[in-house]
Amino acid sequence: MFVVPLIERKRDGGALTPEEWSALVAAYTAGRVPDYQMAALLMAVYFRGLERPELAALTDAMLASGQRLAFDGWATPRIDKHSTGGVGDKVSLVLAPLVAACGVAVPMMSGRGLGHTGGTLDKLESIPGFRTRLSLAETRAQVMKLCCAMIGQTPEIAPADGKLYALRDVTGTVEAIPLIAASIMSKKLAEGLTGLVIDVKRGGGAFLPALEDGLELARTMITLGEDRGCPTVVLLTAMDRPLGRACGNSLETEEAILALRGEGPEDLMEVTYALGVEMLLAASIEKSTKQARKKLESVLASGLAAEKFEQVIEAQGGNPKVLEDPSVLPQAQAVEVFAARETGVVTRVEPRTIGRAIVAMGGGRRQVDDVIDPSVGFVITVKPGDKVLAGEPIASVFAKDAAGVKLGFEGLERAIEVGDRLAEKPLPLVSHRVTKDGVEELVRETGKGKRETGKGKERP
Amino acid sequence: MFVVPLIERKRDGGALTPEEWSALVAAYTAGRVPDYQMAALLMAVYFRGLERPELAALTDAMLASGQRLAFDGWATPRIDKHSTGGVGDKVSLVLAPLVAACGVAVPMMSGRGLGHTGGTLDKLESIPGFRTRLSLAETRAQVMKLCCAMIGQTPEIAPADGKLYALRDVTGTVEAIPLIAASIMSKKLAEGLTGLVIDVKRGGGAFLPALEDGLELARTMITLGEDRGCPTVVLLTAMDRPLGRACGNSLETEEAILALRGEGPEDLMEVTYALGVEMLLAASIEKSTKQARKKLESVLASGLAAEKFEQVIEAQGGNPKVLEDPSVLPQAQAVEVFAARETGVVTRVEPRTIGRAIVAMGGGRRQVDDVIDPSVGFVITVKPGDKVLAGEPIASVFAKDAAGVKLGFEGLERAIEVGDRLAEKPLPLVSHRVTKDGVEELVRETGKGKRETGKGKERP
Repeated sequence: MFVVPLIERKRDGGALTPEEWSALVAAYTAGRVPDYQMAALLMAVYFRGLERPELAALTDAMLASGQRLAFDGWATPRIDKHSTGGVGDKVSLVLAPLVAACGVAVPMMSGRGLGHTGGTLDKLESIPGFRTRLSLAETRAQVMKLCCAMIGQTPEIAPADGKLYALRDVTGTVEAIPLIAASIMSKKLAEGLTGLVIDVKRGGGAFLPALEDGLELARTMITLGEDRGCPTVVLLTAMDRPLGRACGNSLETEEAILALRGEGPEDLMEVTYALGVEMLLAASIEKSTKQARKKLESVLASGLAAEKFEQVIEAQGGNPKVLEDPSVLPQAQAVEVFAARETGVVTRVEPRTIGRAIVAMGGGRRQVDDVIDPSVGFVITVKPGDKVLAGEPIASVFAKDAAGVKLGFEGLERAIEVGDRLAEKPLPLVSHRVTKDGVEELVRETGKGKRETGKGKERP
Repeated sequence: MFVVPLIERKRDGGALTPEEWSALVAAYTAGRVPDYQMAALLMAVYFRGLERPELAALTDAMLASGQRLAFDGWATPRIDKHSTGGVGDKVSLVLAPLVAACGVAVPMMSGRGLGHTGGTLDKLESIPGFRTRLSLAETRAQVMKLCCAMIGQTPEIAPADGKLYALRDVTGTVEAIPLIAASIMSKKLAEGLTGLVIDVKRGGGAFLPALEDGLELARTMITLGEDRGCPTVVLLTAMDRPLGRACGNSLETEEAILALRGEGPEDLMEVTYALGVEMLLAASIEKSTKQARKKLESVLASGLAAEKFEQVIEAQGGNPKVLEDPSVLPQAQAVEVFAARETGVVTRVEPRTIGRAIVAMGGGRRQVDDVIDPSVGFVITVKPGDKVLAGEPIASVFAKDAAGVKLGFEGLERAIEVGDRLAEKPLPLVSHRVTKDGVEELVRETGKGKRETGKGKERP
């Protein structure tokens, strides 16, 4: 395959034909196009973007490179949730069993943490024995039995995406919106879904911090989903501070278990319920936001969601005692309390800095094959806007040893700012709802000196 | 070396430090940075450009990756000429011996043809026995003895450029102006020159057809040369039609020999003299354009230039009889005359099409390791603006066989257009002179509906 003219055409602002994208992805996956040519093309795509037919062809080619979960003839609605990633984002661990307990099948395929963001797989694997590597056949059987499986990307699903993602990760081409959209959707479309709900993070801790980029990604993924028979809804949620209090794998799993027991922090529950409502609506299990929310709350309160998580853990080889006794999770050897340095108002809890500190402490990855220590991390009990007194405990550091504690303290000192008053209002937890019909601004963001360009309207 | 942050910074419009460029080029040349990362960075450079300190550092790092010709203590001025490449451009074969015969040392390092453009090395190697692979020591000794050597890029000179150029060639990043400038100048600065004259081609057959791109490349190279103690002058010359009549390796060598004998076509002689004048002025051999031109003409008429070429050929193992009897050059087996299809005015002789036809006929390269047939090509006896009669011979095709003749005829039919009158005025042969002091427009280009943005002035 003669790739140089294709690279040059994209570089010069032209488009590749759908047939060219198909042939290119097939040849690259088969090793007949070298990485250096694909890297140059991906960087050209970063600058030039992809036209709609190109994006569709790229996504289809990635999807076609592997197998798909098939649920032919099974009437149960199948809805997955995807998040673009953040710090403290343990929503999937609460949401998947909760929605499954409501009677919706959730064939959830997640990723590992890379860079400053955590990954659902790593959190699940902090549970002793938990297997995230199920075959497609095992996954299908478990979904049909329990309505829920929580797995990693198998080599059978979209192998072209796996190869392309690994290349993007080392060539500075991760942040290209069409490539992000194609990567996410090629995997999600392989899950045999009847609907998809996506949590696009915005703010400093998100991969794409800017609102406009988040909205563009949302629209791009919705188009891809809807055009392929998978109705897709996106919520934009806040990642200008960590979600919940726990950051780090074991600690987040523990917080998710607390949440399933009805003791979750408010912000985590708000985001979980908002996404859950969309999943129940997409599944036509409930007709209105209000009814859906009520259903989720009652199923959670009944203990059925926690029980569902217990069943999933047991089915995937994990120790189900974790639901009753989170101390079966790996425990950090060194735990120290971090106190506020001065009296004032918390002005910032910077998620990227927190995420990077966890990586430095051994709880995240610099490279895909790094082994992580699931026990390390933080519990941060303050949010931007909270008043604190000098000397008041505001966080705990969980580390391997004294050196780890030191790294943790340094991270907290950089991440948490205390001042006279909030300079900037924190982002609304759930700010926008994007569907094929357009963008709804759920909370009017004012006083920030920014013009919102989404065609928002107040929700009744 | 952790390259991703460097790629991301360049991608986002930032600059690498000179130290980062040095380390990167050294690590890449040593094989410690993979091709795919360099390919992504080069594409980012294509879109973002290089700031002046970055370009300087890249050029210096490429230069520092190899050795340099050293002529310490030798008083003879050393001036080379470089061309950005075109079709029918055999100027070097005439100019190097001519200027050397005037007493200027010309350590000329040339390249091979690639794509539609020819290369001086291939033309020289059509002379039976001619060796272009001299070591640096041999080159130095020959330059000091004969004032002229004509060699290829040795592995000792700027190996980083060799590796980077090969990568650019297969990743659609050849046309980036700072990369072209760094590539050319890193090699030329290794020749131990006291001055450099560059022929930047413009028009459809040039790598950078647009005037503004040619001027930007000129300014970039001049800055690099002047900052490193190598005064550099650029002439912009026409490549909207082939230069001279012969296109193809043996045929061009034969035409160069005719030129050295005083029988060269007018356009070839004009460009050769214009560049030669700059070389003599740069060497301070003559004080004025007029005197320099006179000197070149008289040395050519005296036969000294032809004699110099004979000495160089003999010194480099070639058959010096070629000066008296060009039939020692490889001869095409099939030669056919091409006649004008209709009566009218020649409106176009498209050099890119001619160059590609030569490649198709086996006389050029698609890949760097292709073996070429030096005997094939064209002699085209008409220029845009010439009147022709239907049936009048206007070109000859030199090919290996009947199939080659067919390819040649097809090429000529596409390349040569005959119409009622010229739609566009051909470009002036030598249109701009660029020095560290600015751009001189040598010929006012009018009636083309284009605004010239160079700050040109008429020459007295």
